[in-house]
Amino acid sequence: MSDLDPAVAARLKRADDGSGRGLVAAVVQQHDTREVLMLGWMDDEALHRTLTTGRATYWSRSRQEYWVKGETSGHAQHVRSVRLDCDGDALLVEVDQVGPACHTGTRTCFDDGLIGA
Amino acid sequence: MSDLDPAVAARLKRADDGSGRGLVAAVVQQHDTREVLMLGWMDDEALHRTLTTGRATYWSRSRQEYWVKGETSGHAQHVRSVRLDCDGDALLVEVDQVGPACHTGTRTCFDDGLIGA
Repeated sequence: MSDLDPAVAARLKRADDGSGRGLVAAVVQQHDTREVLMLGWMDDEALHRTLTTGRATYWSRSRQEYWVKGETSGHAQHVRSVRLDCDGDALLVEVDQVGPACHTGTRTCFDDGLIGA
Repeated sequence: MSDLDPAVAARLKRADDGSGRGLVAAVVQQHDTREVLMLGWMDDEALHRTLTTGRATYWSRSRQEYWVKGETSGHAQHVRSVRLDCDGDALLVEVDQVGPACHTGTRTCFDDGLIGA
């Protein structure tokens, strides 16, 4: 159990990450330019921390730990709003992104990834 | 095996949906207003169809079948571009959305879902 508001927790439709942890996909968007910056994953506790601290916090599937975006890089995401989609399996997190969102140094994680137009 | 370009398939980092099907999250964005419309799921074949037909095509986890967005509702998504993220586990699909994207009738699937600001 996490400290997430039970009314919100009841609406989440989590996907098992393979290790028994229920995760919801979080789409992260820059609030003013509306660029889609990245996709992260949250469990109930990561969502709780995101909502209560105002700093976007994810569950790392590769490292199996929580990470506060920007904690080591300085490229923080200050949360402006969080929305849940109609069927409870995706979040839209509007943020103010400090610096590049991508660990490769590009503004978004999609900048170099064009595969069809 | 699908008919997806092997060079693209090699870059995908799929998550198991629990039934052995490897899926990638697809963030869908209106190309001009940059609204995030919805989140869908694609396997290799859905991505192949999306890239080659120009109509956004997903794998339905609940119905366990392919669906061409708008096929029954008329609310089609005409694909403008498809991007893969830096670590291969998310797609950004820019579309021209006909009518509401959400089955509830709202423009996006996130319109009624504010849980924190």
